[in-house]
Amino acid sequence: MATAKGGPRVKHYRRELWLQTPHRRDYVNITPQVQEAVRESGVRDGLALVNAMHITASVYINDDESGLLADYDDWLEKLAPHEPVSAYRHNRTGEDNADAHMKRQLMGREVVVAITDGRLDLGPWEQIFYGEFDGRRRKRVLVKIIGE
Amino acid sequence: MATAKGGPRVKHYRRELWLQTPHRRDYVNITPQVQEAVRESGVRDGLALVNAMHITASVYINDDESGLLADYDDWLEKLAPHEPVSAYRHNRTGEDNADAHMKRQLMGREVVVAITDGRLDLGPWEQIFYGEFDGRRRKRVLVKIIGE
Amino acid sequence: MATAKGGPRVKHYRRELWLQTPHRRDYVNITPQVQEAVRESGVRDGLALVNAMHITASVYINDDESGLLADYDDWLEKLAPHEPVSAYRHNRTGEDNADAHMKRQLMGREVVVAITDGRLDLGPWEQIFYGEFDGRRRKRVLVKIIGE
Repeated sequence: MATAKGGPRVKHYRRELWLQTPHRRDYVNITPQVQEAVRESGVRDGLALVNAMHITASVYINDDESGLLADYDDWLEKLAPHEPVSAYRHNRTGEDNADAHMKRQLMGREVVVAITDGRLDLGPWEQIFYGEFDGRRRKRVLVKIIGE
Repeated sequence: MATAKGGPRVKHYRRELWLQTPHRRDYVNITPQVQEAVRESGVRDGLALVNAMHITASVYINDDESGLLADYDDWLEKLAPHEPVSAYRHNRTGEDNADAHMKRQLMGREVVVAITDGRLDLGPWEQIFYGEFDGRRRKRVLVKIIGE
Repeated sequence: MATAKGGPRVKHYRRELWLQTPHRRDYVNITPQVQEAVRESGVRDGLALVNAMHITASVYINDDESGLLADYDDWLEKLAPHEPVSAYRHNRTGEDNADAHMKRQLMGREVVVAITDGRLDLGPWEQIFYGEFDGRRRKRVLVKIIGE
């Protein structure tokens, strides 16, 4: 329900999550860390933005089921293959991660999740994932929350 | 325009839309229902988050033109085919909807739409769609609004 | 950090950016214009929504590197080719831009960016891009900001 004019004022909160994945590509369920950020924020109703701060990684929402994660990995490799590295102009700059920039577009940079009654307002199977496509180094996810 | 310090306080609003589509894949224009939610919220300026609560469906914004909807359907089936069902590891869990999890990533989980002067602030052809990729059962879309 | 109950009230701001690109497909870095909108809004902490108002264009975040932009262009053309125009039902309406509606879904309609201490809260290489897939005419991007 909408609050009345004399209602509460806006709150905001910011947190960075640090991740380092062991492989070039990995899929990490970060729902507990985001829920913890919501709790810490004290926001009862509002929106949580969760975004990869790096452009070869994604934050997306889908199922935490190992078969599906393997299917995503195969599918992304089919639509945006890592090899041959020389097929991408971006890799002439000395990088080998052009495919990761494509994969991140397919899976998306960010999610915005509703907060209701102080909790992430997720559907029954919705889990927030960090999708890494050029890992093996420390990278960040930003959680920014506004609401009341 | 930004409001001054003594300006209005934050409002929030939540509504679920229920949908049951007749086919495995369907595309439903939900703009009127979202506009009605904005009206009910009493929010004049803010943001509306509209997201599928199920991980085999999308909320996206594009044209309400029957030829385009048929093109999307063909295109999604080409990039993430339903058959052969056995090609996906996820389907070994007893499901047959792994392709729907891929299609939903292509079309996206959510949209965030500006609210200005109490109305959805959409471009001339922008229409909010529910994209169903594993239908024939009751599923939900969440509308969460914050603003003033 | 979350602000206390007696904290600031909600502010909002709206601006349209107009763009006309010389080619059918173009990629334009609009980060400076969005940063200028944030400055004008006076919002210190909040969220900025940046969305294409046209359904054959994208707003996305990735690298401003010419090789990568060329790679994106090739890749999008491979996944959703412009030719043959007659392969799309949408084009029977007299349009020739059905592929642009697909490309826009791959790259996305919008980004939501955190605002912290009065600035866009972006990772080291994050740049906000307008992706045009049916250009050579004046089109708009919407910037809507809420926060405190």
